[in-house]
Amino acid sequence: MAELTRDTVDYALTQVRAALDRNNVQEAIAALERLKQDEQVEVFDELDVEDQVELLPRLDPETAAEIVVELDAEDQADIAERVDDQTLSRILDEMEPDDAADVIGELPEERQARVLAGMEEADDVRPLLIHPDESAGGLMTTSFLTLRPGMTAQEAIDALREWNPDDEMPYYLFVVDRERRLVGVVSLRQLLVASPNRLISSIMNPDVISVPAGADQEEVANLMKKYDFLALPVVDANNRLLGIITVDDVVDVIEAEATEDVYRLGGVPDEERVFSPLSFSLKRRLPWLYINLLTAFLAAAVVSLFEGTIERVGILAAMQGIVAGMGGNAATQRITILVRGLALSEVELKHALPVISKEALLGLLQGIAIAIVVGVGVAFWQQSAVLGWIVALAMVGNLVVAGLAGAGVPFLLKLLRIDPALASSVIVTTFTDCCGFAFALGLGTLLIAYLPI
Amino acid sequence: MAELTRDTVDYALTQVRAALDRNNVQEAIAALERLKQDEQVEVFDELDVEDQVELLPRLDPETAAEIVVELDAEDQADIAERVDDQTLSRILDEMEPDDAADVIGELPEERQARVLAGMEEADDVRPLLIHPDESAGGLMTTSFLTLRPGMTAQEAIDALREWNPDDEMPYYLFVVDRERRLVGVVSLRQLLVASPNRLISSIMNPDVISVPAGADQEEVANLMKKYDFLALPVVDANNRLLGIITVDDVVDVIEAEATEDVYRLGGVPDEERVFSPLSFSLKRRLPWLYINLLTAFLAAAVVSLFEGTIERVGILAAMQGIVAGMGGNAATQRITILVRGLALSEVELKHALPVISKEALLGLLQGIAIAIVVGVGVAFWQQSAVLGWIVALAMVGNLVVAGLAGAGVPFLLKLLRIDPALASSVIVTTFTDCCGFAFALGLGTLLIAYLPI
Repeated sequence: MAELTRDTVDYALTQVRAALDRNNVQEAIAALERLKQDEQVEVFDELDVEDQVELLPRLDPETAAEIVVELDAEDQADIAERVDDQTLSRILDEMEPDDAADVIGELPEERQARVLAGMEEADDVRPLLIHPDESAGGLMTTSFLTLRPGMTAQEAIDALREWNPDDEMPYYLFVVDRERRLVGVVSLRQLLVASPNRLISSIMNPDVISVPAGADQEEVANLMKKYDFLALPVVDANNRLLGIITVDDVVDVIEAEATEDVYRLGGVPDEERVFSPLSFSLKRRLPWLYINLLTAFLAAAVVSLFEGTIERVGILAAMQGIVAGMGGNAATQRITILVRGLALSEVELKHALPVISKEALLGLLQGIAIAIVVGVGVAFWQQSAVLGWIVALAMVGNLVVAGLAGAGVPFLLKLLRIDPALASSVIVTTFTDCCGFAFALGLGTLLIAYLPI
Repeated sequence: MAELTRDTVDYALTQVRAALDRNNVQEAIAALERLKQDEQVEVFDELDVEDQVELLPRLDPETAAEIVVELDAEDQADIAERVDDQTLSRILDEMEPDDAADVIGELPEERQARVLAGMEEADDVRPLLIHPDESAGGLMTTSFLTLRPGMTAQEAIDALREWNPDDEMPYYLFVVDRERRLVGVVSLRQLLVASPNRLISSIMNPDVISVPAGADQEEVANLMKKYDFLALPVVDANNRLLGIITVDDVVDVIEAEATEDVYRLGGVPDEERVFSPLSFSLKRRLPWLYINLLTAFLAAAVVSLFEGTIERVGILAAMQGIVAGMGGNAATQRITILVRGLALSEVELKHALPVISKEALLGLLQGIAIAIVVGVGVAFWQQSAVLGWIVALAMVGNLVVAGLAGAGVPFLLKLLRIDPALASSVIVTTFTDCCGFAFALGLGTLLIAYLPI
């Protein structure tokens, strides 16, 4: 099925491009409108931004909104920047307020005012602009229906019928008092099966879990995941209902946060994707490489201290890499586990001592297990028991360093309110490189009299 | 709020443990039952498995089910193994069939039969056992209500009232014909606002997207994410409705798949968590370290080929590490982006050529950008322009290798149906280590006459 869709998309893309090449925008529009919604998004996504901007004003605003909302934040910003105010206002009017706010939030302030002035639904969007994108307030939508405790089930159903939103309606309806304070929650199912005259106050569940507007989106995601919520209300300091976060927004957050973790551990700035332009990739990835270059020079400086030793026993230059590399590998494993655990709130700062102790002990045991293999291997390979002992002892030392630093640095960064995913690796591998080189070459220097020259 | 809960949990945990120490199971149960559900889970989770198994038969089966379902798959398996058949059957009866199937699926076959025989809801669970855990069939639940096209809205609402499940009811209801073939979907909202006499066939949307039972869970997650679905029907080859996947199950999948990616990139076996026991961590992490040790020996063998050169110009041993390390860092960045893109289906095999070309060119440009800095730096540090040139040229060469291998290996593994996250790093860094050493030391050997000795 996926393949068939792909063919349809490729065919439509060719048609749209050909029509645009002939300057026949109407035909391009027609080709696009023949497609299903997800196919429209895919075709549109593959067009150049110039073509996209040419098509948008001629598309039905609702269709345009459905397409634009599915694009990457980056592409949305590109389009919003180039399309005229009136078209943008019309398209944003068709979006959910939270999605519209995301688009407007990226515009320069002066243009925000003009675009909002042209919108009918501006009042739903404005309050959302004050919340940061990655907070509960930035995730929530303000377009929702509330019930009152004194309504009957039938009155609530009538209100729903009258309100009749296009498509999105959360499975839960929230109940507020006269001051808009959140007092309960009713599911559509409860409403459906209740007898028509029952009061909402007798149907609703008064224990509602909510989050403040300033809560971080990761916290929101963890909460919704834990309780399998389909919707979560957002309140102000006085428990007044400000908005609702629905589970589909949270799915995106979970994935975005995971990608952020993966990327940061790999030394990649968040914004890049596989198909980012070459110049963008070059500009984004270089700074991280330059930071790593600094640490590489630091490690090289450690090696240079032992130049004399290396010139007498050249094979030590091969051994230093084994010791340093294994320390890096062992550290990377524990950084990975720890960073993910911290991100998912499975681990907290108070766990630092037991975790660091466990990992240091584990490093010692790993060091011994690897030292035996590496020591025997090197002794046979180089026909020197002393060289085997040097590498083995250096390995034990460096894996203890990997245990201490690999567990300690993520906690330390967390304490300093720096994302552990961001900097743990580079700091810890600097430790394991420098210590690995120092241990191997230092022991070599001490025992040089016993080494084969 | 999170902190308060934590105190409650710690206090309750002390109480439960103290009661169990005095062999007063009843008091332990009472302490547990006073807590809210999520607190119960946390307290239970921190108990030893012996204590858990002692408590379970005395807990209300519904409470027991709510607790067990929230535990890790690993803990569930430990408990299921130790608790008696009758208790297990009673607890599983209280779970959703898909959750029960996950627990039963981990038992030995003979015991599966005994436990199923003791269950009332065994017929809902049995069909789920034939599907692998990580497929659509393994994710779906078989406990759901279906509508028929000929029903009226009122009849559907009556059916809902009568069916009255405990809590879980998807927002969407699926419509099937006489042969249980999927013919449409109706949302609770549509049902709620429709006039009572309208036929389901006139309310329903006949375009239902579904997945086959064998579909991979990652595919399911991508589909639900793309369309913001709250529920997705699972069908057999004849389009007969087998079950329903709800969004809360998919949230777990998205997170689990992300964790798997993060872990595999970091060389960690999936099952480990920060609080896994020391012996478990040691056993799990060592094999990966031994694999890395093999590749470290390979790289060391490359260095050993140049022992003579190193003994004449010891500083080359410091330079080799800079060249190899930077290649590894540049490769890690692109592996990260590519592996994540492949996992999220943003990148496919057909993109291999353009992506590898882009990354190779990027590697060349990165190489030049870094070579300039590193060449000038080394030339000044070591007062040797020739040494600067050696490191600079080796750097360009190794970053091209990092570009080709870093982009090529993930695609190659994908082609061979091996998860790129699993093995890309170790293979590619073996390339960048060996080539980095060979380039730096090889050029050093060629130009040794011009180096300061």
